Amino acid sequence: MHLDESSPTPLYRQIYDSIREDIAGGTYPVGSKLPSIRGLAEELHCSRNTIDSAYSMLVEEGFVTGRPGSGYIVQDRSHLLEGVDALPAPRSWQSSPAYRPGARYDFTYGNLEPGTFPATAWRAIVDDLLLSVDGLACNVYTNPAGEEELRREIAWRLTRLRDVDCSPDQVIVQAGTAASVQNLLTLFDSVHDVVAMEDPGYDGVRQVFSRSTFKVMPCRVAGPVEEFFEDLEACHPKLVYVTPSSQFPTCRVMPIKARARLIAWAEANDAYILEDDYCRDFRYTERPLPPLQSMDQSGRVVYMGTFSKSLSPAMRLNYLVLPPKLLDRWNEQFRNSYPTVPWLSQAATARFMASGQWERHLRKLQMKNLRKYKALTSALREEMGDAVDILENGTGLHLLVDVKDGRSQDELIALARASDVAVYGTDRYWQSPEHPLKSCVLVGFSAIAEEDIAPGVRALASAWFS
Amino acid sequence: MHLDESSPTPLYRQIYDSIREDIAGGTYPVGSKLPSIRGLAEELHCSRNTIDSAYSMLVEEGFVTGRPGSGYIVQDRSHLLEGVDALPAPRSWQSSPAYRPGARYDFTYGNLEPGTFPATAWRAIVDDLLLSVDGLACNVYTNPAGEEELRREIAWRLTRLRDVDCSPDQVIVQAGTAASVQNLLTLFDSVHDVVAMEDPGYDGVRQVFSRSTFKVMPCRVAGPVEEFFEDLEACHPKLVYVTPSSQFPTCRVMPIKARARLIAWAEANDAYILEDDYCRDFRYTERPLPPLQSMDQSGRVVYMGTFSKSLSPAMRLNYLVLPPKLLDRWNEQFRNSYPTVPWLSQAATARFMASGQWERHLRKLQMKNLRKYKALTSALREEMGDAVDILENGTGLHLLVDVKDGRSQDELIALARASDVAVYGTDRYWQSPEHPLKSCVLVGFSAIAEEDIAPGVRALASAWFS
Repeated sequence: MHLDESSPTPLYRQIYDSIREDIAGGTYPVGSKLPSIRGLAEELHCSRNTIDSAYSMLVEEGFVTGRPGSGYIVQDRSHLLEGVDALPAPRSWQSSPAYRPGARYDFTYGNLEPGTFPATAWRAIVDDLLLSVDGLACNVYTNPAGEEELRREIAWRLTRLRDVDCSPDQVIVQAGTAASVQNLLTLFDSVHDVVAMEDPGYDGVRQVFSRSTFKVMPCRVAGPVEEFFEDLEACHPKLVYVTPSSQFPTCRVMPIKARARLIAWAEANDAYILEDDYCRDFRYTERPLPPLQSMDQSGRVVYMGTFSKSLSPAMRLNYLVLPPKLLDRWNEQFRNSYPTVPWLSQAATARFMASGQWERHLRKLQMKNLRKYKALTSALREEMGDAVDILENGTGLHLLVDVKDGRSQDELIALARASDVAVYGTDRYWQSPEHPLKSCVLVGFSAIAEEDIAPGVRALASAWFS
Repeated sequence: MHLDESSPTPLYRQIYDSIREDIAGGTYPVGSKLPSIRGLAEELHCSRNTIDSAYSMLVEEGFVTGRPGSGYIVQDRSHLLEGVDALPAPRSWQSSPAYRPGARYDFTYGNLEPGTFPATAWRAIVDDLLLSVDGLACNVYTNPAGEEELRREIAWRLTRLRDVDCSPDQVIVQAGTAASVQNLLTLFDSVHDVVAMEDPGYDGVRQVFSRSTFKVMPCRVAGPVEEFFEDLEACHPKLVYVTPSSQFPTCRVMPIKARARLIAWAEANDAYILEDDYCRDFRYTERPLPPLQSMDQSGRVVYMGTFSKSLSPAMRLNYLVLPPKLLDRWNEQFRNSYPTVPWLSQAATARFMASGQWERHLRKLQMKNLRKYKALTSALREEMGDAVDILENGTGLHLLVDVKDGRSQDELIALARASDVAVYGTDRYWQSPEHPLKSCVLVGFSAIAEEDIAPGVRALASAWFS
């Protein structure tokens, strides 16, 4: 055995590795005895403690039995792990770039700018959680509806800031919008119930609906609001998915009268409304209308919120607020299930919120997005003027640009790409490929850097109009 | 403004807090000017840098605009966040005990012993990931099928250690067994297809099946193996859920001939087998039979594995290995979806595996569970002798104790509880409340401490037989 004192691998680890090799290679067959600690320490000119550490690891992992004084005997552990002992040495880690921009100027929607996630604060919180008694929760199955602390933090803010009337019990922590909707659907009757959703609308939800056996009906939202109710009343859904505070992707706000009418409709028809309030954290011009949930007196609204836009899309963390009747059904269905979000994600988020870091983080992000919103809208007005209409409502992380000269979105997107600018179509959000917003492109500003917005819009204007 | 130099709150933070209070309280109304940095520094006898840090936070969070030299003006940000500025100060964190044992001696199944999760290694890995360029992934939506690195680590071990024939592409990272099965079901036709599962069988899967609209048929596994095939062949399922390496909860091993027959049946009937190999990491007496997946030549087996027993039940991390035909369907259904497991959980697990820490962790845990298995089986034999039959197969984290004097499990469980020992029934694992294992109780050893096993069994024996 040759020890390398200059190696970054500690001596006890070198000894452990070497003996493992000797056992695997037959130098120490099953039943044979390892050298005594004292003898090996003398032979290798190192301390007995070093040998002792190496031998303890070997005992702990079952390669040998024994203890100091009575000798260490090599064990047969071939049945224990199907040959895992023979796995080769650790491999080096390859970082893979998380996100490749689609172009020099990428106006994508959804991803966030590098640096948005509060990584430093998170490291400290994870450290603290794993060091404390809380960390013991890693070893057990926790509450299927989510961690109490997190549900309390969410409910408290919803009540206080959004007039959403709820107790922590009604808050169900989920692993993203799709998972939430998939689980919510199990509370309905997929053979007899119809579900409805906005058209155009968020494709993630449409995909979940279409993977189910529910009949899915579109309700038009790009025209007059009357069309929406016409469709809704014609199809008798038990559940309708809407984004009233900023319709995705049209950026329309549902007027207050339409809100009241929708709630009354649900009440009269024993139906439920799934209100996806995905972008309420970001308002740039005026206070938003109250959520449907806050206007609902009869428990017809399921409120859904997310951490993807304000904290991390990669954390897969959102929540539902269930009205009492659906909460009972939910608890009946999922009482004996397991949570779908890791305890550590939930506990760290709760801690981040409870410590007040959440509010500071959010304020900074709001200011950043406000600057980006202003930069984008003023660059568009400056560079494109009357050639386009801008569809936005002073909220969220995207807007629509309607190019008035009759060119299609495919053509506009291709021209942009040729100039290394990525903008996006809206086809995927529609129920059918024929739709009235063929001249609109979606321009997001969540992922692009603030300083790239003005030059990006200039490049886009020149691609389209020069 | 009064600064407290002895406070643990840094001075700049005290200044920031104080000015925020003054803004909220109207001392500095919207449009008013804050004191100059220089003036305030002199007044408070502190450095300009301190004031500058406080003012920078206020600017960053939008309370004021301005920069050194030109003055700081209080802003109206009432529309930005619905009053979040007025939220009270951070609350202190309340640790909640993660796990309350059901009794002095709790032989529960599933939860792991405190200390199982490798918290120290995890902290280092999370630290490292969040500090490195990898951490940028927190800001974006990642691969819906799971992180490449993790899928590679899993596939490599499966191929090498379990003869499971798969590429990383076939490995789909999921948020636990229930989520996996729920998603897998979307690849089948819920109106026309029948699914089947073992009876008794894991209730988590039965719950998912019963929340769906699939017709669910039980296949008997507590009697002769012929009964299983009788039921299977009678109900024509498209998917059958089995736990061949250690049937849950009976601990039976599916014989090799039955395995071959099951695969041939699937091939002949265009059906799929969902093989849940939930406890393969823990074998105490002999090498296990090869997984069904390794015997399958025609792509009829979906293999499912979990990290809940060997790493953390609270992490919500498992995986499916899909055969090519189902993989195509899966990709079609979920290509545009989002992952269901946080990037950080996936990346940390991959790093833990790639570094070789996984194997060392697993070996230690195997040795620990081996000791617990031996302690439990020998204590049961010693304390209860011929009064009971022990149903186990030298694997997993539980066994069944069949009390031969005809008392029911309810009676036995109640007697145990009265002596502060928790053992469990098997009713929940059966399709119907009538079943032949009424005198069996489930005794788990994943959560109980090694040193509590012998005294716990003594207390149980005295509760039952004295």
